[in-house]
Amino acid sequence: MTPDFDKMARRPASWLTAPGQQTSVVLSSRVRLARNISGLRYPNSADSETMQKVVSYVKTAIDRSSSLVNEGFIESNELSSLTRDFLVERHLISPTFLDDEPNRALYIDEDERTSIMINEEDHLRMQSMYPGLHLYRAYERANELDSDLCSSLEIDYDPDFGFLTACPTNVGTGMRASVLIHLPGLVLTGEIDNVIARISKMGLVVRGFYGEGSDVLGNLFQISNQTTLGASENEILKSIVTITESIITEEGDARNRLVEEAENQIDDKVWRAYGILKYARSLTSEEVMNMLSAVRFGVALGRVSFIDLDQINEILLLSQPAHLQMYYGEEMDQSKRDAVRAQMVRERLRISDRRSDP
Amino acid sequence: MTPDFDKMARRPASWLTAPGQQTSVVLSSRVRLARNISGLRYPNSADSETMQKVVSYVKTAIDRSSSLVNEGFIESNELSSLTRDFLVERHLISPTFLDDEPNRALYIDEDERTSIMINEEDHLRMQSMYPGLHLYRAYERANELDSDLCSSLEIDYDPDFGFLTACPTNVGTGMRASVLIHLPGLVLTGEIDNVIARISKMGLVVRGFYGEGSDVLGNLFQISNQTTLGASENEILKSIVTITESIITEEGDARNRLVEEAENQIDDKVWRAYGILKYARSLTSEEVMNMLSAVRFGVALGRVSFIDLDQINEILLLSQPAHLQMYYGEEMDQSKRDAVRAQMVRERLRISDRRSDP
Repeated sequence: MTPDFDKMARRPASWLTAPGQQTSVVLSSRVRLARNISGLRYPNSADSETMQKVVSYVKTAIDRSSSLVNEGFIESNELSSLTRDFLVERHLISPTFLDDEPNRALYIDEDERTSIMINEEDHLRMQSMYPGLHLYRAYERANELDSDLCSSLEIDYDPDFGFLTACPTNVGTGMRASVLIHLPGLVLTGEIDNVIARISKMGLVVRGFYGEGSDVLGNLFQISNQTTLGASENEILKSIVTITESIITEEGDARNRLVEEAENQIDDKVWRAYGILKYARSLTSEEVMNMLSAVRFGVALGRVSFIDLDQINEILLLSQPAHLQMYYGEEMDQSKRDAVRAQMVRERLRISDRRSDP
Repeated sequence: MTPDFDKMARRPASWLTAPGQQTSVVLSSRVRLARNISGLRYPNSADSETMQKVVSYVKTAIDRSSSLVNEGFIESNELSSLTRDFLVERHLISPTFLDDEPNRALYIDEDERTSIMINEEDHLRMQSMYPGLHLYRAYERANELDSDLCSSLEIDYDPDFGFLTACPTNVGTGMRASVLIHLPGLVLTGEIDNVIARISKMGLVVRGFYGEGSDVLGNLFQISNQTTLGASENEILKSIVTITESIITEEGDARNRLVEEAENQIDDKVWRAYGILKYARSLTSEEVMNMLSAVRFGVALGRVSFIDLDQINEILLLSQPAHLQMYYGEEMDQSKRDAVRAQMVRERLRISDRRSDP
């Protein structure tokens, strides 16, 4: 009755590869709400019995809800360690959810846009993800989920502070909203540092997207809110959307300027990356991210036409270590993964450029 | 009546791309003989009149010869500076022949295997080149040329020392014999340093192949004799051929070992190089040499089959700066050359891999 993870590993995530607004810069939008059930200790100080109660209450709430289906509910002990890694790569659970704690559970919707972690840091972490810049829509869905699920649960709420959470940084709205954005233009022109400084001054957090290593990879950045207290959900969403829209404009300007001033260098960068992806026999996940970043840049600039952003996003997902192992149905060491990753990338690109290889 | 250099720039050099022995390691074999005409000062101390006499004598000797044709004779003032660069890249004249000295001339055979520099360091520098390991054959041809041309010239010869030359290092046989070899296996395994040390101990000279910069490029090395005195032509040739044959064996061993121990890394190296050559929009001549070295390695190992050594050699020749400018019929700065070079490489590879792109 649990989701078919093997099948999932073979298909793109709909929060990443469906049509969306501004997808040439914004990969996805995400809203996460933290909630806790009244009268029960929070996970970090709760005993097994309490945690099982939480799991059981939420399971019942899912049964009673109008928008959630029983099939999406999974007890964490049903998950292999590879499946957990896979779900982290798919942005459906947090890395801390991997801890060996049996009294946890998970809900994943068929389209993966809605997911719930039960007994992570808080009793409930409800998440909604959409492709492109759709932060309001993601919030609407999260809010709907909140009403639907929590109507049959008593939630800790303080008239002065708002929603109560395990960590004080989440108290208030209990909301964390974020966008994942691709900024190769601002990185290449060197303007990225100023942009990051400006975002930080506005009380938002920018962080790079990390792979197996610890460097910022693939020119991918995440912008999210730092504060959850003292501002309404809509004010928080608005500040992120506003800054994102201004970054989209700046990124567009940087891209245009680069094409005007260094057309051949840009083409060289884009096409070399494509050549390496198409022919390498060994690729680390870091290199794939960086090479895909260049190809994505070329697609966004209209200089590469026989592959589209969805296919790039799909390769980006599939090339992650756990995805690869799920896809090929076996556990592999790094050297084997690098070889199999290169093979997968070649196969995907061969499919896409049958249309018209330049 | 001079050779058609534009036509020449569009075709491979027959000393490089015709079938030959051991071509997977040995690109070409070359023998050069230095001779001087009795009673005339050598070029470095001769006046214009004397040098013109030399040119005129040699022209007459070419007329009278049985194997040389008048069409191959060119006065150096007929050569543009671009054409001179082109001939250096084609190994038909030495870089010093580029000096602005009007009283020089040149002979080039239709197939470019035979060439003569007149008034370079010596009155005559006769050269014969063959593809692959054919040093004896190259010597035979040079010797034939020597007899044919010098039968109507009186040549400086000392019964004790042998042939006299401008530089004492050439006195005796006046012969410089060399092979151009590709040693990616020995470079990758790190054994190359020992090999070079051993060759040097035998009184032979090993030097890297230089491009526009000053690094050894493309794993190409030239082995030649240092001494011309105290050993017969055949002894000199034999020592080069013997050491070359032993290097061919060692290179073969290194290649086999690499494929056995690091098959995927080798394939990765080979195919990445191919991907870069096939898609880059800007390539320096150094990078082309290094990438072609990797592809050549793949071809020699039988891991790449849709391109052959001749095509690689042809791209190697064509990608040199003067060749590119001759080919495209215009002078270009480096940035333009790099772009045009990448274009030429792409076109050539597209032709070759129509057969079967992997």
